Amino acid sequence: MKDSLSLVTDFYEFTMSNGYFNKSMQSTIAYFDVFFRKIPDNGGYAIVAGLEQVIDYITHLQFSKEDISYLREQNQFSEEFLQYLENFHFTGSIWAIPEGTVVFPNEPLLTVKAPIIEAQLLETMLLLTLNHQSLIATKTSRIVKAAKGIPVMEFGARRAHGVDAAVYGARASIIGGAVGTSCSLSAKKFHVSASGTMAHSWIQSFPSEYEAFKAYAETYPNSCTLLIDTYDVLQSGVPNAIRVFHDVLDPLGIRPKAVRLDSGDLAYLSKKVREMLDENGYPDCGICATNSLDEFLITSLLEQGAKIDSFGVGENLITAKSNPVFGGVYKLSALEKDGKLIPKIKISETMAKITNPSFKKVYRFYDNDTHKALADVITLYDEQIPKDHYVIFDEQNPWKKKTLSNYTAVCLQKPIFENGKLVYTSPDLKQIATYCKEQLTSMWEEVKRLENPHLYYVDLSEKLWHLKKEMLAKAVTN
Amino acid sequence: MKDSLSLVTDFYEFTMSNGYFNKSMQSTIAYFDVFFRKIPDNGGYAIVAGLEQVIDYITHLQFSKEDISYLREQNQFSEEFLQYLENFHFTGSIWAIPEGTVVFPNEPLLTVKAPIIEAQLLETMLLLTLNHQSLIATKTSRIVKAAKGIPVMEFGARRAHGVDAAVYGARASIIGGAVGTSCSLSAKKFHVSASGTMAHSWIQSFPSEYEAFKAYAETYPNSCTLLIDTYDVLQSGVPNAIRVFHDVLDPLGIRPKAVRLDSGDLAYLSKKVREMLDENGYPDCGICATNSLDEFLITSLLEQGAKIDSFGVGENLITAKSNPVFGGVYKLSALEKDGKLIPKIKISETMAKITNPSFKKVYRFYDNDTHKALADVITLYDEQIPKDHYVIFDEQNPWKKKTLSNYTAVCLQKPIFENGKLVYTSPDLKQIATYCKEQLTSMWEEVKRLENPHLYYVDLSEKLWHLKKEMLAKAVTN
Repeated sequence: MKDSLSLVTDFYEFTMSNGYFNKSMQSTIAYFDVFFRKIPDNGGYAIVAGLEQVIDYITHLQFSKEDISYLREQNQFSEEFLQYLENFHFTGSIWAIPEGTVVFPNEPLLTVKAPIIEAQLLETMLLLTLNHQSLIATKTSRIVKAAKGIPVMEFGARRAHGVDAAVYGARASIIGGAVGTSCSLSAKKFHVSASGTMAHSWIQSFPSEYEAFKAYAETYPNSCTLLIDTYDVLQSGVPNAIRVFHDVLDPLGIRPKAVRLDSGDLAYLSKKVREMLDENGYPDCGICATNSLDEFLITSLLEQGAKIDSFGVGENLITAKSNPVFGGVYKLSALEKDGKLIPKIKISETMAKITNPSFKKVYRFYDNDTHKALADVITLYDEQIPKDHYVIFDEQNPWKKKTLSNYTAVCLQKPIFENGKLVYTSPDLKQIATYCKEQLTSMWEEVKRLENPHLYYVDLSEKLWHLKKEMLAKAVTN
Repeated sequence: MKDSLSLVTDFYEFTMSNGYFNKSMQSTIAYFDVFFRKIPDNGGYAIVAGLEQVIDYITHLQFSKEDISYLREQNQFSEEFLQYLENFHFTGSIWAIPEGTVVFPNEPLLTVKAPIIEAQLLETMLLLTLNHQSLIATKTSRIVKAAKGIPVMEFGARRAHGVDAAVYGARASIIGGAVGTSCSLSAKKFHVSASGTMAHSWIQSFPSEYEAFKAYAETYPNSCTLLIDTYDVLQSGVPNAIRVFHDVLDPLGIRPKAVRLDSGDLAYLSKKVREMLDENGYPDCGICATNSLDEFLITSLLEQGAKIDSFGVGENLITAKSNPVFGGVYKLSALEKDGKLIPKIKISETMAKITNPSFKKVYRFYDNDTHKALADVITLYDEQIPKDHYVIFDEQNPWKKKTLSNYTAVCLQKPIFENGKLVYTSPDLKQIATYCKEQLTSMWEEVKRLENPHLYYVDLSEKLWHLKKEMLAKAVTN
């Protein structure tokens, strides 16, 4: 049933590739960067995710006879090119920032160095994969932050944009800090906890709410979570839940797990429900809240003193509703000619759309005392970071300078492929999630706040800045 | 590489199913409706899509040994239930409104009648599939409407939420009126036209824009579309394109296809480019515009007299950015006991969230003279529509009445499965797109306008209205 991914490729990648082939440029080495220009939701940081799936895609990328036949039928491609595709396998090198890392605009999240056709053919899937998972990891991180330590579960499969959006969206949500997912396949595939108890249909299928709760408690005494809003939370849902805890669980000596609220005024209801549970001897019974939640509703609920022990977040997380596009792009930064690097720049009338030329690295400067991140600097690939002090400056206003000292500078990119050989092992999802948590700890609170965050410094090294200025000057006078 | 879809299921579907099994309710026949409550973007209509994939899912749905092992490891399910799953295949009946139909809130888009476990296990995939494709078909329909006959192409793969979002999003966009897609796999799979010429990287890979254009024209003389905004549209892009048309195409007697604008002021630039092409003997060379377009930007461009011959729409279409959630839900509407239908209703403090009980149909009334749709009426499944006249009334304000006459009433639902047997053949995608166009023709312009559309009547039959009132009264006094 699964289609091969080799044609999940914008058609122009093929027209260009055939064109490069036709012009005997197939062995020209090109450098492409994946980067984004703007953090979704005007946030202060993003979380990169999706690398494991990118690696999987590249490792398996080849064109089947069926793919080739389809392309042949388009009557646009030479037989020599189609034959080239038939023998295609990736021979280039890739560097990338590991999943779960906090990242910022303009940083090369992933750099491809490969014969230009190979680099071009990867574009669509690289972008699609990194854009999707980084979007959801970033959104989840905001929601988890708003929840201030109260566990957040991903409940969005039914509103996801197709199966992969559900499955890999759940994966990305775990990286961003969710503790579990409702999607069974994601839970199985990524070894995370699957959550889920009952829908309103369960309650409706029994003659009464009490009987529905009783049947559930009898079936799942050890994990008894009851949905209490089918009829009336305070007049029916809670009293029936308490009766069932009393009738079914107490005799077994088992404590109830939770009740779930899925509608109404969650702040008011949760407080009332808490009181009723406490008064009836169930202070340890949790309250789970769901119903179109997001980071702002959760913030508001907690400000109102809502008594909630876990959040299930669905559509607003799995679609990143407030900002469903992570605008990662894939831009040529250099070519090689006779072994020499020729930097390339893309001009635009909008300053923000001008690319950073050449093969680059990103260094993060950590303060040795606080262990907090101070700034990132994008450099040319072969620059060395001095150990003692380093002057950073604003690209647009270079007189704005700051001297960093007492730091440890860490290069964010890791080698992933070297001349076609995979040299990287993806950590498992739990490790990535733990790493992401550590990454967030290394960022100042001001960078992480949801509204009007402090702008984290991402500067260019002096060498890169000069190169860019020169190339711009040349381009404009051309 | 492809996972089976059987676990793309919220975990609670399994806990409930096991519970039904545990309570010997597995043969209870249940009726569930898929419907939505609100049209995205405050639009006047939606387009339903995704049925073909729903059928494919249900036809192939079974649980592998691996699925069963995973579920067993959760230590929540009885062996008898797991054995039941091992032999699972769908035995129920399904009615649905065909893809490409114009639909409105509260209408049952799809109704499942099946043993309750079977009906419950389908929920997540039914919703996910119909929500996703209906979302994108509806959004595309708005964009296509704004384009007033100028062709719209789907260019969003790189910003889609995963592979399926790209592939099936492209499918849904064709239903909604797009004429082609950039995604090669969608084009191949659904037999639609693949569009795509070059990225900025093509231009940057050559020593000059002229040489890049020339290489492209030489490779693709018959479909020569050039991207003219890499350096400067008016000073460099257009003059170089014209030179190449002159140098390469004219001698071959071939006309250029188009130029593409991907940045800058598209209204101003397109008019200038049009003038330059006309003055130089290429009045038949098209202008294609791309760059984060949506229905409102397209409306504005056309109001400004932009000279554009085709639009490529990416991220705003493929994510339905302005409203990326199609809120389809799946609600129990009835059970059968001893062969008798027992209607079920879901109460809520919000009127809009109260469900319509029982097994239902939707009839659309077409005016016999204008052939325009007058109203939809949701009825009980066995009601007959009288031939002469029919009184519709507003559910909330039943004194607001209107008598319809001179109409043809058409039942929107078609039988899809009958007792587990597939009895429906999905039309091919082109047929669905043509049908959707006809459907839109049958709707008054007032319903279709993008802002503040006229509210199309969707009323309940008197019988259904009475049943609902009675059930509500009983539920409240309970």
